[in-house]
Amino acid sequence: MNASSPVLVIHGGAGTIAPSRSVAEELVYHAALADILTAGAACLEAGGSALDAVGIAVDLLEECPLFNAGHGAVFTSAGTHELDAAVMDGATLRAGAVAAVTRVRRPGRAARAIMEAGEHVLLAGPGAEAFARHQGLEMVEPDFFSTEARRAQLVQAQATGRIALDHDGASPPLDEARKFGTVGAVALDRHGHLAALTSTGGMTNKRPGRIGDSPLIGAGTYADDRTAAVSCTGTGEAFMRIAAAHDVCARMAYGGRSLEDAARAVVEGALPSVGGRGGLIAVDAAGRIAMPFNTEGMYRGHVRMGEPPATAIFGQAR
Amino acid sequence: MNASSPVLVIHGGAGTIAPSRSVAEELVYHAALADILTAGAACLEAGGSALDAVGIAVDLLEECPLFNAGHGAVFTSAGTHELDAAVMDGATLRAGAVAAVTRVRRPGRAARAIMEAGEHVLLAGPGAEAFARHQGLEMVEPDFFSTEARRAQLVQAQATGRIALDHDGASPPLDEARKFGTVGAVALDRHGHLAALTSTGGMTNKRPGRIGDSPLIGAGTYADDRTAAVSCTGTGEAFMRIAAAHDVCARMAYGGRSLEDAARAVVEGALPSVGGRGGLIAVDAAGRIAMPFNTEGMYRGHVRMGEPPATAIFGQAR
Repeated sequence: MNASSPVLVIHGGAGTIAPSRSVAEELVYHAALADILTAGAACLEAGGSALDAVGIAVDLLEECPLFNAGHGAVFTSAGTHELDAAVMDGATLRAGAVAAVTRVRRPGRAARAIMEAGEHVLLAGPGAEAFARHQGLEMVEPDFFSTEARRAQLVQAQATGRIALDHDGASPPLDEARKFGTVGAVALDRHGHLAALTSTGGMTNKRPGRIGDSPLIGAGTYADDRTAAVSCTGTGEAFMRIAAAHDVCARMAYGGRSLEDAARAVVEGALPSVGGRGGLIAVDAAGRIAMPFNTEGMYRGHVRMGEPPATAIFGQAR
Repeated sequence: MNASSPVLVIHGGAGTIAPSRSVAEELVYHAALADILTAGAACLEAGGSALDAVGIAVDLLEECPLFNAGHGAVFTSAGTHELDAAVMDGATLRAGAVAAVTRVRRPGRAARAIMEAGEHVLLAGPGAEAFARHQGLEMVEPDFFSTEARRAQLVQAQATGRIALDHDGASPPLDEARKFGTVGAVALDRHGHLAALTSTGGMTNKRPGRIGDSPLIGAGTYADDRTAAVSCTGTGEAFMRIAAAHDVCARMAYGGRSLEDAARAVVEGALPSVGGRGGLIAVDAAGRIAMPFNTEGMYRGHVRMGEPPATAIFGQAR
């Protein structure tokens, strides 16, 4: 087999078209996604690993207040932030994840540090923060993650007694009131290795201590060079019940399905069968990609070497 | 298809034969396993659901100090207990789980309560305890779970700087210094429904905040009426990296493998390929069972209606 042609795919959450959808705001999202793809692609172009490329992309997605991860994360019902992230290396099946951290600036990097340490896969809460601090990762005050827009969403959600409800004074293309806020990246590098990384602030008004699919290996995040790298976004509990990310890989490995077929079977079949909504991004070792979702839109994009980044919000991904 | 013939399978952890193995002590373990199987079988015999039967079995396994779950749980490196559990209903793919709880007397029941509430799948730490208390589950002081034998194991582990190390002054059949302490149950009821439930105190001297495979749907616990109910025990991180419990079901669903073939492929193939040790118990909708492990022994047993319970510690399970 020849050297692989690298590719990077990212997502910034899935959801419903906002009633007051603003075209001007759409351009802001497209530009943000393109910039992030360009930065990740530069890493792959220079011979960087898939792991490093997804790390760069998620670093930027976390720092961007448009997306619900890191700065700009949603609030729990207690008015706090609890951040989750997971990373997986398709070459070795090594993985690392953090859940319910409140002071780690870049949860994606904390997940990577846990993976590199090699002892545990998932650390939660204060134990995860003690580990991150010991590793020299940047810690911040919990209000670092807060934005006025997210606080307004919490007030709105609590007034109506809804979880996962979200509202924004601005008019972004996807309805913040019904958007699943997660960010993620999957990549293939020139050595033929795959990696996946997912990071999230969870659901607005969620119960403290709730862990969703994002930090769970096999649920919201999975990577195996023999099949695919997958990162999910949506109603986390449904993704957990069907082990969505691993299910894409299993349908390929045992059922001989293509990436596209496997990814669509999960998002259009298994997921709705348990009431799940959302989508996923995936890439296989041949560089094929899939970005199916069963919502009206999903912030997403991909880039191949020597081509400009392609970004999209609505329409069914192919 | 005729009404199913109910079956219940349980495990109490896997590991290595103790150097000072005591035959008298072996009988204690066989008797404990047989008693627990008998209690669970009575439920199934009376027409109870698979969910109720695994609940009864794990209630008793948790309360039995011989096994590392509930009373008799191991200590973390901080001298505390952090308990994890997960349950899954194969008929509906509903699931519930708790991680890192310190005051819930019966973590398996807390997992079931989360599943029944239907809002979230996994709650961790204080948020999980607040939920359990609100549901009226019995709360205890954290030292309820402590036993002198487990404290001695922590002292020994810390003296040698090992995690997962365990030592007991007595001479149980499996070496407490190298045993993976988890309990679990899987069942088929007369309605053809499957359920799985796993509960654990984790690894002696583990880092606080570490979450293993037991409470993670797809890793240590999975159930789907179309394939199997699975409960795992072993080096949790390896089970997480291969999504072990879901992988058994996926090999059956997509690869057309039998329960026995699928379970062995995971325990003898995928698991050692990532350095994993341990075993699992599984039952399919036809009542076939599998109990493979790649360690020297696994505390285990099964019971079918109208037959006496069968228990085992050593030898390869068939």
